[in-house]
Amino acid sequence: MMAQPLGIGIIGLGTIGHIHEATVRSFGDSFRLAAVADLDEAVARRLGTEAGVPAYASGGELLNNPAVEAVVIATPAETHGELIEEAATAGKHVFCEKPLEVDVQRIDRALAAVEQAGVLLMVGFNRRFDQNFEDLGEELNAQRVGALISIHIISRDPILRGPPRQIDGMSGLFFETTIHDLDMLRFLTRAEIEWVHVQASAPVHGQAEVDTAVTFVQMTNGVVATIDNSQAAYHYDQRIEAFGTKGALVAANQTVNTVTLSDAEGIHAPRHQYFFPQRYRQSYINELHAFCGFIKAGVEPRPSAVDGRAATAAALACHRSAAEARPVPLTEIG
Amino acid sequence: MMAQPLGIGIIGLGTIGHIHEATVRSFGDSFRLAAVADLDEAVARRLGTEAGVPAYASGGELLNNPAVEAVVIATPAETHGELIEEAATAGKHVFCEKPLEVDVQRIDRALAAVEQAGVLLMVGFNRRFDQNFEDLGEELNAQRVGALISIHIISRDPILRGPPRQIDGMSGLFFETTIHDLDMLRFLTRAEIEWVHVQASAPVHGQAEVDTAVTFVQMTNGVVATIDNSQAAYHYDQRIEAFGTKGALVAANQTVNTVTLSDAEGIHAPRHQYFFPQRYRQSYINELHAFCGFIKAGVEPRPSAVDGRAATAAALACHRSAAEARPVPLTEIG
Amino acid sequence: MMAQPLGIGIIGLGTIGHIHEATVRSFGDSFRLAAVADLDEAVARRLGTEAGVPAYASGGELLNNPAVEAVVIATPAETHGELIEEAATAGKHVFCEKPLEVDVQRIDRALAAVEQAGVLLMVGFNRRFDQNFEDLGEELNAQRVGALISIHIISRDPILRGPPRQIDGMSGLFFETTIHDLDMLRFLTRAEIEWVHVQASAPVHGQAEVDTAVTFVQMTNGVVATIDNSQAAYHYDQRIEAFGTKGALVAANQTVNTVTLSDAEGIHAPRHQYFFPQRYRQSYINELHAFCGFIKAGVEPRPSAVDGRAATAAALACHRSAAEARPVPLTEIG
Amino acid sequence: MMAQPLGIGIIGLGTIGHIHEATVRSFGDSFRLAAVADLDEAVARRLGTEAGVPAYASGGELLNNPAVEAVVIATPAETHGELIEEAATAGKHVFCEKPLEVDVQRIDRALAAVEQAGVLLMVGFNRRFDQNFEDLGEELNAQRVGALISIHIISRDPILRGPPRQIDGMSGLFFETTIHDLDMLRFLTRAEIEWVHVQASAPVHGQAEVDTAVTFVQMTNGVVATIDNSQAAYHYDQRIEAFGTKGALVAANQTVNTVTLSDAEGIHAPRHQYFFPQRYRQSYINELHAFCGFIKAGVEPRPSAVDGRAATAAALACHRSAAEARPVPLTEIG
Repeated sequence: MMAQPLGIGIIGLGTIGHIHEATVRSFGDSFRLAAVADLDEAVARRLGTEAGVPAYASGGELLNNPAVEAVVIATPAETHGELIEEAATAGKHVFCEKPLEVDVQRIDRALAAVEQAGVLLMVGFNRRFDQNFEDLGEELNAQRVGALISIHIISRDPILRGPPRQIDGMSGLFFETTIHDLDMLRFLTRAEIEWVHVQASAPVHGQAEVDTAVTFVQMTNGVVATIDNSQAAYHYDQRIEAFGTKGALVAANQTVNTVTLSDAEGIHAPRHQYFFPQRYRQSYINELHAFCGFIKAGVEPRPSAVDGRAATAAALACHRSAAEARPVPLTEIG
Repeated sequence: MMAQPLGIGIIGLGTIGHIHEATVRSFGDSFRLAAVADLDEAVARRLGTEAGVPAYASGGELLNNPAVEAVVIATPAETHGELIEEAATAGKHVFCEKPLEVDVQRIDRALAAVEQAGVLLMVGFNRRFDQNFEDLGEELNAQRVGALISIHIISRDPILRGPPRQIDGMSGLFFETTIHDLDMLRFLTRAEIEWVHVQASAPVHGQAEVDTAVTFVQMTNGVVATIDNSQAAYHYDQRIEAFGTKGALVAANQTVNTVTLSDAEGIHAPRHQYFFPQRYRQSYINELHAFCGFIKAGVEPRPSAVDGRAATAAALACHRSAAEARPVPLTEIG
Repeated sequence: MMAQPLGIGIIGLGTIGHIHEATVRSFGDSFRLAAVADLDEAVARRLGTEAGVPAYASGGELLNNPAVEAVVIATPAETHGELIEEAATAGKHVFCEKPLEVDVQRIDRALAAVEQAGVLLMVGFNRRFDQNFEDLGEELNAQRVGALISIHIISRDPILRGPPRQIDGMSGLFFETTIHDLDMLRFLTRAEIEWVHVQASAPVHGQAEVDTAVTFVQMTNGVVATIDNSQAAYHYDQRIEAFGTKGALVAANQTVNTVTLSDAEGIHAPRHQYFFPQRYRQSYINELHAFCGFIKAGVEPRPSAVDGRAATAAALACHRSAAEARPVPLTEIG
Repeated sequence: MMAQPLGIGIIGLGTIGHIHEATVRSFGDSFRLAAVADLDEAVARRLGTEAGVPAYASGGELLNNPAVEAVVIATPAETHGELIEEAATAGKHVFCEKPLEVDVQRIDRALAAVEQAGVLLMVGFNRRFDQNFEDLGEELNAQRVGALISIHIISRDPILRGPPRQIDGMSGLFFETTIHDLDMLRFLTRAEIEWVHVQASAPVHGQAEVDTAVTFVQMTNGVVATIDNSQAAYHYDQRIEAFGTKGALVAANQTVNTVTLSDAEGIHAPRHQYFFPQRYRQSYINELHAFCGFIKAGVEPRPSAVDGRAATAAALACHRSAAEARPVPLTEIG
């Protein structure tokens, strides 16, 4: 006999909210969509009708619905702290999209509420659930490359819109893109970030903004890393290289198919998968199943609140390093 | 408002039957599992209980269930003809696993019943729904390589068990493995097979059996093809190359991940996906959705009864060519 | 102390004659260019002056030069037999370009003269000296793939000129292109060709000519092979795949560099090397050094006269198979 | 009529001296080996006898030989300055191995002597003459990636011996390995190095030495680079990636062949070429031909004295950055 599906409410119905909604509705054995909310009430109502669930114009109203056992928070980053507090107070478990927040004080208040309420919180660093990076991580842990020395992450988003949005007066690049890689470094090295040194620029969108950055990172266990980020690249490029004393591991890009065309013009290799909804499709499914498993088992989810806070602190250090053109130790952020 | 899910009965609950059952149960918007049947009644009952649907010990009983609107036939090949007849007579649409049958007379009787009953029949040549081969086919149709000249298919199964089972006294290699490639040639060239010339042997399982074959094929439109088959290879190898007057297309293997390990021993590329349930996972989902779409639209499915019959005739010619060591024209088969 | 360089006369100063001339002049420790000859006397004289050696308008005159210890025959295929006879009679060792000849009777007369004179003869199947194919051959011999089952050779020349020239009323495709692959099969399998079955056509140059062929080959040791040839392809494509009971070996194309360009149009892989002078450059150098070594050691060169004769016989069988649309056993050729 | 070959004297007959000697002797049309010298007189004498040229136990003696028109300096780095001075004073053109020197004052004295004497000097940054990097550079200059944003260089030597030798009390890593990449950045970006930030360690040879480093580099034109170096890696790894506003270029490793072996253990890709004599073989030949061309044309060679000095200054900054754990601007070095 199967366990009862977990009743999920989704707050925020943008791209990422819709990805989670599709997961919840496709895997009926694990989840049950219980309610949806979006500030754009029409969006919420359309989806509610289609799925046959209540729709709300605010997270607060959704949290009052007793069929909601856990919420997925997929609203803008700077609203996460407050919503987590409200959800915890309402006794709901929380799956919060990354970044956990962009302000360390708001994070600390939210986490206090979570602890107080005894609910569980997971942060949506979905790339930990990507098959390639997960396998790479397992091979590292199995010492397949000996002792780890350095990591190089290439994480470049395609140019699809204007410059990165500003969040609390900072470039969204660090909180939307770099933050994935900062978390990945903590995940792969099992160490903390000691300092970051960022060179940022805006070669595509002009000097008033930051759309591109290279980040030099020192981990507390001696591993050195470099991260190559962009929100204005010509295509999606997602790779990791890890070098150790006895070998190296490289996770290459995934492609749309395996078909190569050769003709008189040259040899045309398969294209990379277009963007995150395609490239990381399965990881979003995997992470929500993992969340569900943690809730049912009553154990601390991973990536945890601590993981979410550490990545945000590192992203704040990146912003400061870029602004002040110097290495910034994490101890400055608090 | 969504259309009503299609009520599906599954007859035959081996590996492939279970693959279809998982599809039907995961995509509740399209399908509804209505009943299951297997000669091993315990197997049928276990699944019926888990899924909450009636279970039967024979296809005949399942066909009496009015909730079943369409059946998936996933029993051994030599039983397909009779089951198709019964299903058609009971007014059910049919999705029949490949091969359609291994006997042309039984196929013709079954297709007469289908026509008589006015039901629709689709044959499960799932590789037509594989992203790589589908894209390769589209590029061919778009004349991206100019006029097509030749095709080379590598289609080698891993050695996982004993020699290919005998079907009606013939090696299963031609009806389980080669038949996919014969259909693929018809799919990619949009022409018929004119003759086949097969060299078969049993390098792994010994001379009494056939576990390996190379097939030379002439298509009616002048395209020449070679097919490299095995049921005893060291790993799963699934590739297609197509050469035209202006270019070539190559569909490579899919791998379990994109991670390469380099160490003092050498460079270890990612492994191929293990076998058909992994490699063609999505194609099985796609083909059943396509079947559902054909039924709802009331149009002739593709791959059709004609496609199923043509592939079986070609596989019979392969058997004869191997046995008699000479090219065999399809006109000999009837 | 170093041995005396071998005095080489080159007869025939087309593309391939010039390749050998550059080798002889670049490696002064091994060879010494002693004389050159070409029916186009101006061509011969120009090179003779540049290199400071005597130049002749015919092979016969060159053979009278006592400084010539060995000749490289690089004239049209149908003149090889007679020139070998003359060279042998003049007491010169012979390096003869492939094909050894296009007529079995002329070959047998030439080989009789060679034997009579006690000189040594090597045939220029340079691909045996290509690093990739040589390494592939060594791995096969080391049983790295277990017992060999099948081989697939792709050997397609770029379209650079009109249709293949006719040689003795036969398409040059079989004697210039296919013959390399027939020899490669003998080299890799260490067996003889039993029969060939060829489907030939002229998709580029029209139906009066043959510019493309697929050849199905049975070796005497049970190995089955397919060869994909063209003299009108969109680029140079030179690959071998060999399947065994325990593994497979694939020799891929060599590229002009290792540089991949990605841009908004897609991913552009490095191009294949342009044609044989680029792709097989080192193999031409290697084979001439090997020839020199055989002469100095006084041992039978490899590829030998027997190898040259066998490949020509197989090419003649290919021509007949294509013309008569049936498998042709080598026993028919004699 | 051909120009007279350039008379070359080689000073220092270690690995790299022998590479240049082989080039000089193989291409008789361009060069003529005129003399050799090595502090190990037996080594010099052996080679002199083999090649039939005078041999000396010191560079000074060799410089007195009037047949020597130009010298190749292939002695330890810290002797280069003095030898350049002597050679210039003797009126010889100079091809000096990298690094030009490890001391800026010694460089400046040597360059003053070169200018005074009116001879020409070229520095042996051979990687500028590697086909892959040269082509990558040309594509960058042709704006194939739009405006250049960042470069990632992987340049890891195999572990073949003990820790890097100390040069003037500094790790040889920066002067033997990193210096190639610092020059490559100047070559590819056509800009100067503004600052370097190095994290160095000795994961293989222990904490007293430096055998591994990651270098973060800011160029004066805004390009940011990272360099991954080791002298203790499990194999030779030589790659460059360049990202621009409209695309990226990646130069991959060269392999010993193109042969992939698949078996039950996995898929074994071709190995990288073993070390610099194999990987960069052709570049050494190319650079010496280029040197010869510059001398004969009487034009300033490239890479020039300025290039050599700039790379040494940057390597000194790397040493300081590693030692003091901070970014070091090149203005500190002078």
